[in-house]
Amino acid sequence: MSNKKKLRIGIVGYGFMGRAHTNAYRQVSRFFDCEYEPVLKAACGRNEEKVKAFAENWGYESTETDWRRLVERDDIDAIDIAAPNNMHKEIAIAAAEAGKMILCEKPLGMNTAESKEMAAAAKKAGVKTLVWYNYRFIPAVTMAKNLVDAGKLGKIYHYRANFLQDWTISEDVPLGGQALWRLDVDASGSGVTGDLLAHCIDTAMWLNGPITSVSAMTETFVKERTHSETGEKKSVGVDDACAFLARFENGSLAIFESSRYARGHKALYTFEMNGRDASFAWDLHDMHRLSYYDNADGDLRGWRSIHVSEGEHPYMDKWWVPGLNIGYEHSFTHCLYGFLKSLEDGEAGFHPDFSDGVKTDVVCEAVLESAKTKSWQEIE
Amino acid sequence: MSNKKKLRIGIVGYGFMGRAHTNAYRQVSRFFDCEYEPVLKAACGRNEEKVKAFAENWGYESTETDWRRLVERDDIDAIDIAAPNNMHKEIAIAAAEAGKMILCEKPLGMNTAESKEMAAAAKKAGVKTLVWYNYRFIPAVTMAKNLVDAGKLGKIYHYRANFLQDWTISEDVPLGGQALWRLDVDASGSGVTGDLLAHCIDTAMWLNGPITSVSAMTETFVKERTHSETGEKKSVGVDDACAFLARFENGSLAIFESSRYARGHKALYTFEMNGRDASFAWDLHDMHRLSYYDNADGDLRGWRSIHVSEGEHPYMDKWWVPGLNIGYEHSFTHCLYGFLKSLEDGEAGFHPDFSDGVKTDVVCEAVLESAKTKSWQEIE
Amino acid sequence: MSNKKKLRIGIVGYGFMGRAHTNAYRQVSRFFDCEYEPVLKAACGRNEEKVKAFAENWGYESTETDWRRLVERDDIDAIDIAAPNNMHKEIAIAAAEAGKMILCEKPLGMNTAESKEMAAAAKKAGVKTLVWYNYRFIPAVTMAKNLVDAGKLGKIYHYRANFLQDWTISEDVPLGGQALWRLDVDASGSGVTGDLLAHCIDTAMWLNGPITSVSAMTETFVKERTHSETGEKKSVGVDDACAFLARFENGSLAIFESSRYARGHKALYTFEMNGRDASFAWDLHDMHRLSYYDNADGDLRGWRSIHVSEGEHPYMDKWWVPGLNIGYEHSFTHCLYGFLKSLEDGEAGFHPDFSDGVKTDVVCEAVLESAKTKSWQEIE
Amino acid sequence: MSNKKKLRIGIVGYGFMGRAHTNAYRQVSRFFDCEYEPVLKAACGRNEEKVKAFAENWGYESTETDWRRLVERDDIDAIDIAAPNNMHKEIAIAAAEAGKMILCEKPLGMNTAESKEMAAAAKKAGVKTLVWYNYRFIPAVTMAKNLVDAGKLGKIYHYRANFLQDWTISEDVPLGGQALWRLDVDASGSGVTGDLLAHCIDTAMWLNGPITSVSAMTETFVKERTHSETGEKKSVGVDDACAFLARFENGSLAIFESSRYARGHKALYTFEMNGRDASFAWDLHDMHRLSYYDNADGDLRGWRSIHVSEGEHPYMDKWWVPGLNIGYEHSFTHCLYGFLKSLEDGEAGFHPDFSDGVKTDVVCEAVLESAKTKSWQEIE
Repeated sequence: MSNKKKLRIGIVGYGFMGRAHTNAYRQVSRFFDCEYEPVLKAACGRNEEKVKAFAENWGYESTETDWRRLVERDDIDAIDIAAPNNMHKEIAIAAAEAGKMILCEKPLGMNTAESKEMAAAAKKAGVKTLVWYNYRFIPAVTMAKNLVDAGKLGKIYHYRANFLQDWTISEDVPLGGQALWRLDVDASGSGVTGDLLAHCIDTAMWLNGPITSVSAMTETFVKERTHSETGEKKSVGVDDACAFLARFENGSLAIFESSRYARGHKALYTFEMNGRDASFAWDLHDMHRLSYYDNADGDLRGWRSIHVSEGEHPYMDKWWVPGLNIGYEHSFTHCLYGFLKSLEDGEAGFHPDFSDGVKTDVVCEAVLESAKTKSWQEIE
Repeated sequence: MSNKKKLRIGIVGYGFMGRAHTNAYRQVSRFFDCEYEPVLKAACGRNEEKVKAFAENWGYESTETDWRRLVERDDIDAIDIAAPNNMHKEIAIAAAEAGKMILCEKPLGMNTAESKEMAAAAKKAGVKTLVWYNYRFIPAVTMAKNLVDAGKLGKIYHYRANFLQDWTISEDVPLGGQALWRLDVDASGSGVTGDLLAHCIDTAMWLNGPITSVSAMTETFVKERTHSETGEKKSVGVDDACAFLARFENGSLAIFESSRYARGHKALYTFEMNGRDASFAWDLHDMHRLSYYDNADGDLRGWRSIHVSEGEHPYMDKWWVPGLNIGYEHSFTHCLYGFLKSLEDGEAGFHPDFSDGVKTDVVCEAVLESAKTKSWQEIE
Repeated sequence: MSNKKKLRIGIVGYGFMGRAHTNAYRQVSRFFDCEYEPVLKAACGRNEEKVKAFAENWGYESTETDWRRLVERDDIDAIDIAAPNNMHKEIAIAAAEAGKMILCEKPLGMNTAESKEMAAAAKKAGVKTLVWYNYRFIPAVTMAKNLVDAGKLGKIYHYRANFLQDWTISEDVPLGGQALWRLDVDASGSGVTGDLLAHCIDTAMWLNGPITSVSAMTETFVKERTHSETGEKKSVGVDDACAFLARFENGSLAIFESSRYARGHKALYTFEMNGRDASFAWDLHDMHRLSYYDNADGDLRGWRSIHVSEGEHPYMDKWWVPGLNIGYEHSFTHCLYGFLKSLEDGEAGFHPDFSDGVKTDVVCEAVLESAKTKSWQEIE
Repeated sequence: MSNKKKLRIGIVGYGFMGRAHTNAYRQVSRFFDCEYEPVLKAACGRNEEKVKAFAENWGYESTETDWRRLVERDDIDAIDIAAPNNMHKEIAIAAAEAGKMILCEKPLGMNTAESKEMAAAAKKAGVKTLVWYNYRFIPAVTMAKNLVDAGKLGKIYHYRANFLQDWTISEDVPLGGQALWRLDVDASGSGVTGDLLAHCIDTAMWLNGPITSVSAMTETFVKERTHSETGEKKSVGVDDACAFLARFENGSLAIFESSRYARGHKALYTFEMNGRDASFAWDLHDMHRLSYYDNADGDLRGWRSIHVSEGEHPYMDKWWVPGLNIGYEHSFTHCLYGFLKSLEDGEAGFHPDFSDGVKTDVVCEAVLESAKTKSWQEIE
């Protein structure tokens, strides 16, 4: 084993996100040079058989079936929360109180009240935090941020984003249980707003600053589904679709939309930003490309399809050779890399942290409130 | 000259739309077989020199400088209104009273009150009407309509459309005068809402039925511009950008957006419709293609880029050979073809007519009212 | 009728190309300002009924059924040859001898011997000539030429082009007769080589200079078809597909391919040129776009999709407004515009003329000879 | 450590391919379920410091600086050859003689003679072999193969492929040494032909069967470069660009092209196959998509852009969720997965093995010979 400093990880949850985070822990040190190296100390889940299989497959040294035990362990530096949303708050607060760093899947809480409580606990304990808004760390997205920071766009007029899926169109899709808790409002808190728009909002505020007001609508197309475990019909409490208008502090206008009923789109997260001097657009389905339009190109202006795979591009000097793509999973790897680097730098902060997570939850809540009250909501 | 029945045209206006309509009058009989053939009888404009040059170039037999004279002429069957919006009402009512058919550029009126007055006058006079919502007649758009009518999409969940331009970003663009009356609210009635969103709304209701409620926001980014004729500063009264949420009678949700500040987009009119079974999307910049996704394609499903240029496709058997595109201008040719065919069929109606024009103006007005009052507006 | 100078046209042929050329004659003066204006004097075809219908539809003043009569007429300045390839030579030579300008559909002759004879006759008679290599005049293609002329690409390494169709895959497609003479080697001289690759070669040499050697292969996939008029089986003499390697005088390498058996492609004429500093690519299916890659764009380099529809772009200030496409047909309009302008300029030459047509025929013949002999052919 | 059967790996080489193979060894068992699990036993390289750093980073248990030592070790089951081409033969033969399985980077040998010797040695020793023609294992490419095998394309008319890069345009790029041995003919054997076209040829024969004849041309644009280690000028012996025509045993025609001077393309490996009933096309730059055209789609036919990321698609049920891409690196993971599965199945063969590697080398050699002799070469 290497001489690097260790960041000993205990993870709660072994589903989609449990796998994605774990893969990042295993891969980051292979491709990036950090003082710290994650060590897979323990995996925790309620189903002992499943958590043991997960741990063996991915190389965790041990398992727990009670997250409270995990949080208490002395041989763990950081707790990764990859459990359903309704468990985030309790685990995070306990972890903070135990002095552990926290790497929490998004959205931070079930609602703003929870998020704020979590952030307060972390702040009080002085522990480092991360919220897995992984899309910031896709090279083409990071490149977009760099363009904004370099002032290439000039004054911003428009922002638009959507996140479209189509997997719940069939009325036969059940809800609840391990795989389908996202459809059960008791476990998820909300539907597309917390699951998908939260990503759009996080990226939007990172690129374009604070949102000041929203007007939203939501819809639940299928009103009742069978619970995957009980077999009983249950009323669907989540929003199947949500769209909203927004104004940003910088004077720009925005539209956001998300749905799980957009036939033909699997995970179409897109955003576009139009400035006086330049514009860009991005699309998760072709995540390795950034579309960029520079008005300074004169009569040769056109949307450039930048294949973000060259050594000058963010993160890409660490991977293969120009022209070769990396996958979705490495958004987590890069996110983790940033976190590890922030540990080296002492006081330097990492973002997105819990304070960022709160800001996104505040917007999500205003969106849901706007849809409920059919009125514009101001965001302080 | 051919033995066809004649439709003797008198046109008011010789700008962009005057040219586009006239080109259609000249071309329709070359490519389509109708009983009726347009005859370019007279062109009318206030500037005698310019209207004479226009008439000579395009082959109008005569000119007028007072539209009232044009409307009175016995040798004219139909009045084409291609003048600024603030002249539509007066001309249309006079034309109706003179028993002339009316082919009016969109939007129909400066506001709903005007539109309704125009439609009432035409109805009272029993004259045939057309509103030049030309985009319905682009082959790929007509094909989209055919897919809806054939039930290929199933229940509709989502509609989205935008119309994005970037030509007014510079503060140095003046307003007013012949070329720039679209920026002068006194001549245009509104900005992007009446100019661009009207197209989006017309197509949307044609494809997806009535809109029942809207929540909108508008913005005017440049508050003051120099008038092109007077040289004086004038407050800009039009909306530079407008976005709105909408609900349709069929239960689907929609977002609409338009701007003249969307850097990189010249005339990006797009729409997309997501149904249970299939979806389609279209984009004016590549107007000869329809994107279509059919869920029945199983593991080979993907967005099909249909190059709408084959003999089986709407209108295309009349043009060249498969693979060869036609241009924007023939949306007018096809629109006119439909109108001429409706003359043959006696009682058969043509759409979009003035009643359709009113419906779109009603939505536009609700949109502007919603933006002004920051509230949802119901549409009866 | 206007005071412009007249160019009185007599056309032979009323098929696809007869329509395309005629449309250009009618449209050019509507959109472009020239001293000369075409006048549709006479249309000629062997079938009297059909040629009369054609003339009436398009506005020709008179008809002929014998092209020799047409060529003799005093009231005609220019002969347009839109008849099958096997008639080009005889008509062109007679027209030259009668002192008429000649606008001839491509390829110029059935073979190099014919082409050279035609060019010699025109030269001897001192008449102006045009070969309808219309693709040079698509705005995006003209723009590509301007980039080359401006030295934007630097030293050229690669050229590639193809022209792919799929309309003859079915063995049930007959050959011969008015519509299908392109499949009858007696009327066409060759298959895809003269019909499609001739376009690729003309553009290639215009953009990239002379071709010095070729190695080709051809194939005829369906060996026998039914003649559309006689109903008898006839051996297919044309090449269904042809591909060749080429070297240019400037040291660049090229590949060319054409087929009527490329399922999924209707008229996919594409070319791409790679230089030291920049590259471009174009595709007839989306003919209003030029893809351009400029290595000077640094870490923001990517293929720019230039929507060739703005006022700064070739020809486009004469049409509509930015973002709006024109169609295939106006490649002929622009070609004709160039010819009309060359009449104004006195000694100024127009290209492509018969000498250009000969050059392309020479390469086509070398290609066919290479395929036949399975050897590289040098082109003097 | 798990109870799985072990495949103990010794690798020679720690460059680009050393990393790519090793990553596959580490990842395959995380995502795929096999009886066998790779164990990283030893890494070998001439530079002790570098090989130790490589081993530590990736988790190899030990290192060697002499490949002969590696081959002799009892604790190793399989030798991975990721060293420059000129070392393949000697190592492979020694490994075979030592009874080791061999996983060799492509091309198999420096030329056909070497390849055949290697294949004979492996056959004689009865050891399992693999050649890392990794592109077969990209999900969209595997899907293309499945379409061929299912007979979806019908009779094939055309195949075309290219592999375009632009990294050697500058005359300042040196040659030789660890990173740049691909430009040194003594280490590589050939330029783009063995490096890039070998991939195109392997995929082509896998999809479309044997190639029977070729006509090629090659070029070396920069004739002399500085050696990266000696600092001396050296004549460039590799082909910078190569294009060839080919005929397949099934009667289809093909064109192939590769270059390192195609400005704007980084690793543009594309292929397209046109059949009577359907066609497909693929592009490494957007490797997660397969373009598919099915003529049975009638008037709704168009190229489908299949986002190969769903559970029904090859390999994709093992990764994330629909819509999320995986990267280039997993072509190696999937290739290895196939090899591991073949170990379970006893007699079942794995492809591509050394016999496949020989076939591709035979075509490469014919291509180079054709270019040299300027003649068609038959392939027995």
